[in-house]
Amino acid sequence: MAEDLQEFLTGLDAEIRAMGDWGAVADYIPELGRVAPDQFGIAVALPDGRVLTAGKAAQPFSIQSVSKVFALACVLGRIGEQLWLRVGREPSGDRFDSILLLEQEKGRPRNPFINAGALVVTDELLTGRTPRQALSEVLSFVRAAAEDDDIHIDKAVARSEAENGHRNTALAHYLRSFGNLNNPPEHTTGTYFHQCAIEMSCIQLARAGRSIAGLPNAPQMLSPRKARRINALMLTCGQYDGSGNFAFRVGLPAKSGVGGGLLIIAPGRASIAIWSPGLDGWGNSKMGTLAAEKLAEFTGWSVFG
Amino acid sequence: MAEDLQEFLTGLDAEIRAMGDWGAVADYIPELGRVAPDQFGIAVALPDGRVLTAGKAAQPFSIQSVSKVFALACVLGRIGEQLWLRVGREPSGDRFDSILLLEQEKGRPRNPFINAGALVVTDELLTGRTPRQALSEVLSFVRAAAEDDDIHIDKAVARSEAENGHRNTALAHYLRSFGNLNNPPEHTTGTYFHQCAIEMSCIQLARAGRSIAGLPNAPQMLSPRKARRINALMLTCGQYDGSGNFAFRVGLPAKSGVGGGLLIIAPGRASIAIWSPGLDGWGNSKMGTLAAEKLAEFTGWSVFG
Amino acid sequence: MAEDLQEFLTGLDAEIRAMGDWGAVADYIPELGRVAPDQFGIAVALPDGRVLTAGKAAQPFSIQSVSKVFALACVLGRIGEQLWLRVGREPSGDRFDSILLLEQEKGRPRNPFINAGALVVTDELLTGRTPRQALSEVLSFVRAAAEDDDIHIDKAVARSEAENGHRNTALAHYLRSFGNLNNPPEHTTGTYFHQCAIEMSCIQLARAGRSIAGLPNAPQMLSPRKARRINALMLTCGQYDGSGNFAFRVGLPAKSGVGGGLLIIAPGRASIAIWSPGLDGWGNSKMGTLAAEKLAEFTGWSVFG
Amino acid sequence: MAEDLQEFLTGLDAEIRAMGDWGAVADYIPELGRVAPDQFGIAVALPDGRVLTAGKAAQPFSIQSVSKVFALACVLGRIGEQLWLRVGREPSGDRFDSILLLEQEKGRPRNPFINAGALVVTDELLTGRTPRQALSEVLSFVRAAAEDDDIHIDKAVARSEAENGHRNTALAHYLRSFGNLNNPPEHTTGTYFHQCAIEMSCIQLARAGRSIAGLPNAPQMLSPRKARRINALMLTCGQYDGSGNFAFRVGLPAKSGVGGGLLIIAPGRASIAIWSPGLDGWGNSKMGTLAAEKLAEFTGWSVFG
Repeated sequence: MAEDLQEFLTGLDAEIRAMGDWGAVADYIPELGRVAPDQFGIAVALPDGRVLTAGKAAQPFSIQSVSKVFALACVLGRIGEQLWLRVGREPSGDRFDSILLLEQEKGRPRNPFINAGALVVTDELLTGRTPRQALSEVLSFVRAAAEDDDIHIDKAVARSEAENGHRNTALAHYLRSFGNLNNPPEHTTGTYFHQCAIEMSCIQLARAGRSIAGLPNAPQMLSPRKARRINALMLTCGQYDGSGNFAFRVGLPAKSGVGGGLLIIAPGRASIAIWSPGLDGWGNSKMGTLAAEKLAEFTGWSVFG
Repeated sequence: MAEDLQEFLTGLDAEIRAMGDWGAVADYIPELGRVAPDQFGIAVALPDGRVLTAGKAAQPFSIQSVSKVFALACVLGRIGEQLWLRVGREPSGDRFDSILLLEQEKGRPRNPFINAGALVVTDELLTGRTPRQALSEVLSFVRAAAEDDDIHIDKAVARSEAENGHRNTALAHYLRSFGNLNNPPEHTTGTYFHQCAIEMSCIQLARAGRSIAGLPNAPQMLSPRKARRINALMLTCGQYDGSGNFAFRVGLPAKSGVGGGLLIIAPGRASIAIWSPGLDGWGNSKMGTLAAEKLAEFTGWSVFG
Repeated sequence: MAEDLQEFLTGLDAEIRAMGDWGAVADYIPELGRVAPDQFGIAVALPDGRVLTAGKAAQPFSIQSVSKVFALACVLGRIGEQLWLRVGREPSGDRFDSILLLEQEKGRPRNPFINAGALVVTDELLTGRTPRQALSEVLSFVRAAAEDDDIHIDKAVARSEAENGHRNTALAHYLRSFGNLNNPPEHTTGTYFHQCAIEMSCIQLARAGRSIAGLPNAPQMLSPRKARRINALMLTCGQYDGSGNFAFRVGLPAKSGVGGGLLIIAPGRASIAIWSPGLDGWGNSKMGTLAAEKLAEFTGWSVFG
Repeated sequence: MAEDLQEFLTGLDAEIRAMGDWGAVADYIPELGRVAPDQFGIAVALPDGRVLTAGKAAQPFSIQSVSKVFALACVLGRIGEQLWLRVGREPSGDRFDSILLLEQEKGRPRNPFINAGALVVTDELLTGRTPRQALSEVLSFVRAAAEDDDIHIDKAVARSEAENGHRNTALAHYLRSFGNLNNPPEHTTGTYFHQCAIEMSCIQLARAGRSIAGLPNAPQMLSPRKARRINALMLTCGQYDGSGNFAFRVGLPAKSGVGGGLLIIAPGRASIAIWSPGLDGWGNSKMGTLAAEKLAEFTGWSVFG
């Protein structure tokens, strides 16, 4: 089986590269805008501990919103269900950075994976901690989950986000105006921008997802119940307003990032990371989504039977 | 295992009846408003063909929006992917009968489980058929899936919906104004009101869901791929704006109806029907949702590992 | 003064015809779609009883939404302030046929000049009357206001609206679902479609507006207080989502119709009718709006000093 | 006439004080929250130069959003029509501090009197100027318009706004994210908060409004055309989502502030200032609005004839 899968992945890499329909990279900060769109990597962590790869699986990239999954895991580990007093668990039906629903719902973001909700999660991480400590907690979690200490934050990306992230800053102040931000907005956004600037390769990211996938040899970072719930949120809310479509086509929980990364969970079977920096209209990796669909079709992995 | 589960179901019935916190029945038509809210039934169809039950599992009720699953299955069987040109696959983030998103999305309903989308599905069913034929197709599908011919439409309910369903009539005309309704609005709504007025018991409904759950002894009504996709839609969109919450708490695809019915799918493991006519604020069965959560916890059934 | 104004109007007609930038006619029904867009007429009724004209001022056209002013005048004359329990008095910030705000405001239209609000006005007209009687009341009002019995309803237009007016039918059913429509939806829409199909020339329309303008020689159809209030509504809501812009540029209360008609009130000074069937992006007469601006500039007529 | 009006004003003051239905003061900053709601003052500046008064007409209060009129006048004087590339002229149909429409309209505020639009106006004032200079320009304009140098900024109010104005800060960052804010957000909000903290009495405010009313003895601050246009904007947008209602009931252009102030313009006839700090549900002065309606009824002043 693993041999077939390796063969499939190698073929997939060739196929994707041959298509040449990459989408456009995010360009709201120069650091992301400079990345060439025509790149592809994939890594699949299996229950036996092996990590199969193809393409640029060892190339580090900015994980951006994929970090929201790890920040959420940290916060759920610390305060548990109380988080849901501050943030909802429903798909947003809107763009990742929309401020619309925030007004309609009186400052309680729809879910922890849109930007407003992720800011609340980061704000919760800051309770009783400095930004440096909170950031260190997320980074330690990711390193421990991946069993790899060579994971770092790209400070230039973080700085650039801080300079250009007017919409996230607006969201933070807006949350504050509803009393749903406990820390000074610039602390919360500063921590958030750094968390998003974590750099990982597909190999590292696939390994970091093993505990969410409940793979037997993964480090124990999460109770099975918490893992299930994170998977539920990833499935219903992980691809912004493309979540329903992704669930329909791929059938697996996943979280995308604007850097072109994609963490996909096949519970009990695999933790998958894909990277291709060109994006589709929803802000999700264009070739990454296609590759995910082909992988799911090949393996038959689907949470839906 | 089946013995433990039977014991659990019997206990669950007693527990629910002891709670007495039933919610309120839908009262927009007198036929639904007359039903006593303090009722509960459950049926679990297993891979070995057995159907375990507790409470009023043999009592027929109006399946209402649960019928949307069967109408969708019929249409997907007939025209397949073309349906998605007329209706989306994203959670709506709004009420089941909202007209808001319909305007924003220029007449293409967000998904086939909100009323606007279900009207489009029914409208598609009417292609080349009379209302009577289309209705007969849905009813035949349900009977064949349940392997039970004693399933009927409550004409009084259908008539009452037609008299009071001004919002659905508005939705139909609105779809028509965008060119996304092919039949005379009154044909589409008439067929839709009758389809919603199908009466089934929990036992019948659980049996009818077996093919969606992919149970080995189920009649072959759907390809595995179609079943998976229907499950994906049920998980992301099946409980209206409570879908994310249901996925989080229960972790299984499900579809609710305003008559208090709930069809829940544990792919490969079980098809479950619950009925309790009192509703929560989202229009989903209040005790039904609670029972689903307890059942998922007891069995460990979850698509998320 | 009247000589200067006549000279200006004659020049304006020539100027408009020379521009040739007419916009597009409404084409949702063939009767309107067949009208040539490159036409222009204007009539100005003065306090001394004279009606100055230029261009095709004697050519009858479909007044469409301009009829909402007269229907409102009839209803205010009959039930007065009670109307405001059913409809608001605020600009809508949206398209003339939007259903959005209707949902947000629970079935109470924002104002009597968007379609939903006009349907409520017509519905109120039907209280205790048949559609034929209600229609006759509006037509009699218009004829008396214009002191001209040669004003008729174009039945072909009304029929065509009824066949194509799916959105208005949707609005009527939607209002009904909120309990804000007292008559069978098809009675209300039928009456409304006929009222919109009244045909008038600029001369007739300018004369019909004299009582709203409070001109000394006008037939007494309205108390000064009611006239002022209708003017207030025309100014804030008369041009749909272009009302603020019109108030800014022209400074006079006005009501537009999709047939290219425009009734403009200079309180105490003049009642003006302009017709040019090509429309701008808001659904208001393109050359009509420009002509109104030039007329206001020439005369100095503005309610704002 | 002036004697009758003085008598009416004196009686109005007594009547309002006897009613005792004051509404609640704004309490989002302590400086405003400490003001007693049961206060009333009125001043009417007439064409002959007299200013009639009643109640606490000499008591200074925080003019808050009334300042938006003067900032707009400054900017129109400087850049004229170019402003409309950055801000619209349509009623918003929403709350004064709504961020909703800002997203729908891609960062172009609906009009210069909602907070987002006023921030753009202030941002424009800052072009080529320091915050101190821009502020000085607005203050000089107000002093010159009122012919009274004893008008000052309450620094404690400005500071308090800066500390609590999270929503305005959010709006500024949000505008910036759309490229519709040219200055550092904290410069624009800082200037805006100070401008809103100008303190004036009814007498001073009525005098400052004379040039907008086009009174013969007013200092020439604005061309008649600009004055007319500011009046148009005040009428359609000056009372937020209560503008239509105010136009209907009072029939005069006006601008309200959350400090309970109200500047009302009767073009060519009077400039009126009313102050009563208790607010209604739209954030407009409750007794101030009632007093305006009674005054309009008594005098017959209405732009609508």
